[in-house]
Amino acid sequence: MLSATSSVFSHGAAAVKEYPFSLRRTLLALAVGLLAIGLLASFNIAFAQDDGPTTEWLKGYSDDIVTVVAAALVFFMQAGFAFLGAGLIRSKNTTNYLTKSFMDFAIASLGFWAFGFAFMLGDTAGGIIGITGWFLTSGDYVGWIFQMVFAATAATIVAGAMAERTKLQAYLAYSFIVSALIYPIYGHWVWGSGWLANMGALDYAGSGVVHAVGGFIALAGAWVVGPRIGKFINGRAQEMPAHSTPFVVAGTFILFFGWFGFNVGWGDDIGLNAVNTLLAGATGAVVALYITLIVKGKADILMACNGALAGLVGITAPVGFVDPWAAVVIGAIAAPVMYFSVMFVERVLKVDDPVGAISVHGFTGLWGLLAVAIFAKEGGLVSGSATLIGPQIVSILAVVIWALVTGLAMFYLLKFTMGVRVSEAEEMEGLDISEHGIQTYPEATAVS
Amino acid sequence: MLSATSSVFSHGAAAVKEYPFSLRRTLLALAVGLLAIGLLASFNIAFAQDDGPTTEWLKGYSDDIVTVVAAALVFFMQAGFAFLGAGLIRSKNTTNYLTKSFMDFAIASLGFWAFGFAFMLGDTAGGIIGITGWFLTSGDYVGWIFQMVFAATAATIVAGAMAERTKLQAYLAYSFIVSALIYPIYGHWVWGSGWLANMGALDYAGSGVVHAVGGFIALAGAWVVGPRIGKFINGRAQEMPAHSTPFVVAGTFILFFGWFGFNVGWGDDIGLNAVNTLLAGATGAVVALYITLIVKGKADILMACNGALAGLVGITAPVGFVDPWAAVVIGAIAAPVMYFSVMFVERVLKVDDPVGAISVHGFTGLWGLLAVAIFAKEGGLVSGSATLIGPQIVSILAVVIWALVTGLAMFYLLKFTMGVRVSEAEEMEGLDISEHGIQTYPEATAVS
Amino acid sequence: MLSATSSVFSHGAAAVKEYPFSLRRTLLALAVGLLAIGLLASFNIAFAQDDGPTTEWLKGYSDDIVTVVAAALVFFMQAGFAFLGAGLIRSKNTTNYLTKSFMDFAIASLGFWAFGFAFMLGDTAGGIIGITGWFLTSGDYVGWIFQMVFAATAATIVAGAMAERTKLQAYLAYSFIVSALIYPIYGHWVWGSGWLANMGALDYAGSGVVHAVGGFIALAGAWVVGPRIGKFINGRAQEMPAHSTPFVVAGTFILFFGWFGFNVGWGDDIGLNAVNTLLAGATGAVVALYITLIVKGKADILMACNGALAGLVGITAPVGFVDPWAAVVIGAIAAPVMYFSVMFVERVLKVDDPVGAISVHGFTGLWGLLAVAIFAKEGGLVSGSATLIGPQIVSILAVVIWALVTGLAMFYLLKFTMGVRVSEAEEMEGLDISEHGIQTYPEATAVS
Repeated sequence: MLSATSSVFSHGAAAVKEYPFSLRRTLLALAVGLLAIGLLASFNIAFAQDDGPTTEWLKGYSDDIVTVVAAALVFFMQAGFAFLGAGLIRSKNTTNYLTKSFMDFAIASLGFWAFGFAFMLGDTAGGIIGITGWFLTSGDYVGWIFQMVFAATAATIVAGAMAERTKLQAYLAYSFIVSALIYPIYGHWVWGSGWLANMGALDYAGSGVVHAVGGFIALAGAWVVGPRIGKFINGRAQEMPAHSTPFVVAGTFILFFGWFGFNVGWGDDIGLNAVNTLLAGATGAVVALYITLIVKGKADILMACNGALAGLVGITAPVGFVDPWAAVVIGAIAAPVMYFSVMFVERVLKVDDPVGAISVHGFTGLWGLLAVAIFAKEGGLVSGSATLIGPQIVSILAVVIWALVTGLAMFYLLKFTMGVRVSEAEEMEGLDISEHGIQTYPEATAVS
Repeated sequence: MLSATSSVFSHGAAAVKEYPFSLRRTLLALAVGLLAIGLLASFNIAFAQDDGPTTEWLKGYSDDIVTVVAAALVFFMQAGFAFLGAGLIRSKNTTNYLTKSFMDFAIASLGFWAFGFAFMLGDTAGGIIGITGWFLTSGDYVGWIFQMVFAATAATIVAGAMAERTKLQAYLAYSFIVSALIYPIYGHWVWGSGWLANMGALDYAGSGVVHAVGGFIALAGAWVVGPRIGKFINGRAQEMPAHSTPFVVAGTFILFFGWFGFNVGWGDDIGLNAVNTLLAGATGAVVALYITLIVKGKADILMACNGALAGLVGITAPVGFVDPWAAVVIGAIAAPVMYFSVMFVERVLKVDDPVGAISVHGFTGLWGLLAVAIFAKEGGLVSGSATLIGPQIVSILAVVIWALVTGLAMFYLLKFTMGVRVSEAEEMEGLDISEHGIQTYPEATAVS
Repeated sequence: MLSATSSVFSHGAAAVKEYPFSLRRTLLALAVGLLAIGLLASFNIAFAQDDGPTTEWLKGYSDDIVTVVAAALVFFMQAGFAFLGAGLIRSKNTTNYLTKSFMDFAIASLGFWAFGFAFMLGDTAGGIIGITGWFLTSGDYVGWIFQMVFAATAATIVAGAMAERTKLQAYLAYSFIVSALIYPIYGHWVWGSGWLANMGALDYAGSGVVHAVGGFIALAGAWVVGPRIGKFINGRAQEMPAHSTPFVVAGTFILFFGWFGFNVGWGDDIGLNAVNTLLAGATGAVVALYITLIVKGKADILMACNGALAGLVGITAPVGFVDPWAAVVIGAIAAPVMYFSVMFVERVLKVDDPVGAISVHGFTGLWGLLAVAIFAKEGGLVSGSATLIGPQIVSILAVVIWALVTGLAMFYLLKFTMGVRVSEAEEMEGLDISEHGIQTYPEATAVS
């Protein structure tokens, strides 16, 4: 078709050259030529219209593909959280833990569908809260599915810190409140049209919005529910060994796998984001393992897993703003931030966090927000600028205050209404029996 | 390049305006202008041809990417089925169950490659069966890989209902027959150029084609093979506890993850399909959990997992035809459909289905087909139309009759040739030893 | 817009036809017409420029999406290797094995970031080694993330063959050397601008580059570290049962799932590559299972899993060059190649490979390289050509010699510096205690 057009064009022009002196014929040739051009142009344009979608549409379709695939990967992180936590606790509470992990995602889906998405990304009311788009009436399906799995991630982070002693029903109520209200409001401030966004605060994929929010709500929850029986004896923290290393490693692998979706699903520079994700997570694992080799003389894989997760949490805010070398540095610092905050939470705050969620997601999430101010290629200290320092520090203060205050309010409310903690007898027997009537491994009589 | 072209065009036109009264020069200018247009047009078109693929091709490439990624996700569902089922049975048959799950997919691949794809999507013989494209001679690789993983899903559904007492060799023979013949023929009726499609019956991603076909063949199989020793004592069903809750939860998470591929891989509105999938599955889980809290006073995670799967099976036929609010309703109804059909199969039919496959996939699959007639935005009752009621009810009858009749024929054939059931001694000892000579957990002496 | 253009074009031409005999008006009409064409052409071109990205760019974006998603899937294969191996060994070394699998990937990331990628795909120095692009200064992020996960795969293959007796620190040192140096150099020869590539040797996705390199380094490692205590008694190999069939099956499913990324992420014919991957893996599983049914009278799922992996390793080099029927044949031959090389390694070489890595990846990798020469649609024996025979045989010899020589040099170096083997007492107790101070299943007192 196209080459036919081209030869007709040439022919029209050639015809003009062949008879330069016959005015009449020249004019006729020109007229015929123009007519042909007009017709062919119309035809071509019509053809182009039929030829397929516009490139803008295709770019949008490709972006949607990235986002939906990423959403599926982030969804799968729920399984990672479930097995990471289930492995780190005792087998008598395993079914209970898996139940919470499985159900908080389901509850969060409904809460975020009905209210959360509107609070988070609806039209803003003064930069404080979104107020349009309840029940997904906006029709932004791709946007919703991606934001939804992030909301579920924030909700599930808390399960670990409150494991082995929290009532299931209180946990389900909490999941709804977090995904429908607490998470979306802070999310609106940063990712909606909120006041932190207006101030210039940056959080690429959610070190603050997802991880620090979840981590500091977890701190509030662990505080309110109190430590497990036997965790602190005369004020000294006791070891309570992880019941399944394979579950911990499986969970970490799944989380790492899903994190590619978490950081890449935004559709900008998918190559850079994937590279930074991998390098920060890998560096966090290596540094954490060597810390344990130096401190304890043993290679603690459980700490290496948390190191990988710390590196991933740390890179999440800066992932699209920094170079790969910076991802290595961010991951290398995230590991000790996680390691020493585990000590701090246990020994100074005397808070019992069976899986280290407060440290991995809370404190390391803050490190991620700060890392943006330091390493961002535009506006970061390494670029000779300090414009991000202010907004990022305000973000950090905002997330800690918001998550702790609302978290404490919510858990005290639940405590004085439905109660948040199981009875001492139930805790000793294990929540699998009391809450579920199910033994996790009923045939393994020697596995308590 | 392009702006150069544009200025030359303008120049040619400008030249005409500059000398309006000199005929000769005007004509010459016109001739030169036309010649230039002709040449540039040829050049431009050539340039455009070199510039890259057409947008149609790119749309097709993007669709292929969606489909191939989805096929990989659906493939991974095999692992989900394997662990869901292995967790729900006793440890003495775990290796046997995993073997069946792993091998049925492999066998199905070969059966569907050689015959199934041709029967299903080849040129139709009277709307009854496809008859072209044996051994993938059609060259439709993307279409095949996606359809293949669906065929394997249908085949593997049966494993659960027949677990803990079926001979491996009979199971392998069955897998071949289902994937090469029984599944593809019903598939042809709905997704090929078959009579149900011609009647206007709709099944977006296979509540009927995959799940109900698998579920009712499973009913036939469980019927023919009979209940496990000890399942019914004086006609009353006995509890046979799941040996590993973590396997069940892991399997469910994997299935849910893969289901995004199942429902999204068709490439239409990938956002809507992902949203509906997630909402229906989540709602099914929540409703099923609360049913058990109400009925038993305990939160039964195993039932919540089956509730999630019921929601997913229910939304599979209507997924691309309904709004998100309808997905929530469909999932909410799927859970009790599953729950009460489990009772029905066990207490009324007195059929032993160790994992609930007949209910989750069979009866809930029928609900999915019916839900299309109710909730479809075009042609559904909610849109004020009743045009889909007829075709969907015919579909439901067709799938039940087809799967039961061919399933019974096949299993009786296998029973009277190679036999379908292991000996009583083998069943008591466990199939891991008798069929495989392998202990699933050889070091765990206390795990029977 | 476009139809407006088209009507103006037509109008210009029509104007010419309306007044054929008035020269003046005709010329004016022509001049106006040309001016209009010029203006519209400029406008159109500007419009086209604003209209969105070029189709070339979109093709590149789609290719990047395929590659990044594939890289995530190949990353997840690390979890597959971890659980496959952990399941095949004894529980007393499970944490140790998981630690090695988890950490080798992390170490390899850093080694490949700093040096490996430059050695492999930098500008060549005489076809021997790449010498540009250290620390990912090339900015080829998408290329790096994909190549990186392949390098990590090669590194992790060795873990299995050396399991249950190798020092962790030696293992970490080894991982760095392989990913930074040994793997990239052979990779440069085939996938960079190296001498094997120049000779016409083909290896689509790495039967040689990844699997044979890993497999023959594994042979060197298992040789140097020696067999496990109790493996050979009076020169006869003893059974050491796999401690968890579920881990083996889970690992295999994950590997198979990830293999779609491995073979499809190159962006050519994604449909064909997915089909060939699935068919070869499925056929390998079926043939291996029937071999064990014939030889032992029992269906050995562990061997069927290795059969699937053998089929996948075998198809990896030819995947994009052959038709689906050939994938079936290649998978069918890969299974006995794997099966009999397991016998050969154990009974003839008297090398102790606890997981069969040398056979599955090493010997079957060579079969993959040879299969290219036989089955390639262009240049393969089946096409009536023999041009690939020479280059493929040179490739095979090169990979065996390179991996064995460098592997032996490296492991002897490590042996005489830091030592590669734990003490006899540590081996008897299990490496979980001596190296990690962690019990894999601390509550399961009856699980040794």
